[in-house]
Amino acid sequence: MGQARPDTRLKIQGAATVLFRRNGYSGTGLKRIATEAEAPFGSIYHFFPGGKQQLAEEVIRTSGAEYGQMVLALLDSVPDPVESVVHAFQAAADHLTATDYADACPIATVALEVAGTDEVLRVATAEVFAGWVGAGEQWFARWVSDQDAARSLAYSMIMILEGAFVLSRAARDPEPLRVAGRSMAELLRTAIDRAGRRPNR
Amino acid sequence: MGQARPDTRLKIQGAATVLFRRNGYSGTGLKRIATEAEAPFGSIYHFFPGGKQQLAEEVIRTSGAEYGQMVLALLDSVPDPVESVVHAFQAAADHLTATDYADACPIATVALEVAGTDEVLRVATAEVFAGWVGAGEQWFARWVSDQDAARSLAYSMIMILEGAFVLSRAARDPEPLRVAGRSMAELLRTAIDRAGRRPNR
Repeated sequence: MGQARPDTRLKIQGAATVLFRRNGYSGTGLKRIATEAEAPFGSIYHFFPGGKQQLAEEVIRTSGAEYGQMVLALLDSVPDPVESVVHAFQAAADHLTATDYADACPIATVALEVAGTDEVLRVATAEVFAGWVGAGEQWFARWVSDQDAARSLAYSMIMILEGAFVLSRAARDPEPLRVAGRSMAELLRTAIDRAGRRPNR
Repeated sequence: MGQARPDTRLKIQGAATVLFRRNGYSGTGLKRIATEAEAPFGSIYHFFPGGKQQLAEEVIRTSGAEYGQMVLALLDSVPDPVESVVHAFQAAADHLTATDYADACPIATVALEVAGTDEVLRVATAEVFAGWVGAGEQWFARWVSDQDAARSLAYSMIMILEGAFVLSRAARDPEPLRVAGRSMAELLRTAIDRAGRRPNR
């Protein structure tokens, strides 16, 4: 049976990832997902018996984890931490303009939509953000010896990135992302100056 | 005719403001708006012939302008600029928890939903954000003599506030907003130290 192929499951999840990211959770119907995935409508319930909510939860957790990995890889691609922060925001700006302002954070739109309406999905977004904060804290702790400062930097980087996506997408202008990168670099520079750069381990 | 009363228009707009803010644009139906407004369904089209889009545009522009005024008033309620930034984020955190994590930015959810799908509403959100940036730039220029720095601070404050709302609502935890306030205070302190505090005029 065609709908039982594992690649159909991947196609459905891929189509849902793109649609939720671009149009949000409420704005995305299962019919549209099936069409974009070139999958029979019934195959969605075959692979995701819990329907749209289950599909969205998988998309949030999977694309959230992937996105966190991608940002960390970007940060690790430049040796100097302050420069790497600027570089990561510039890469986000480049990607946003290259996709005609469609591809920003994979979960933010859904996170805002479900925060007060769907407890399962709210918890999924909260756990993704918590994972990003934890990973970011570890990354910043390589450069800043104060663990609380490293955690604040991780929070701040995620928050200013999320806000920059909102403003850049609304204005169709990458400038907010660049400003965010410079501000984040400033915060890191200040934290390094204050706490002292951690010696290489 | 009952539906022609001006207060019915206000009730519709008020109900739509709350629902769009809490559940988003796609997740809010006109029937629900009419119910919450205790208004006849037909009265929505009486006052807003363009239907949901026209209603949303008015909500975005009106609640966006009001929210900007409210934040400026918060900032002006404390004499010291660095303390007033911390105070404004604490007030946002208090309001968020007092409303059970429902009332954050009145336009962010809709802004993310419509960025790639509705040009009229995208432009409305972009103009609201531009208005906030302009007003914020003027406020920061009272404390920082470098106009570019004042503009960056205004952008950064709006972005980190928006991102903090995303994380605080997702986690049902005011801590991200408090971290955002401290980071923003840090950015302002650094800018004042660098550019020099503008003499009182």
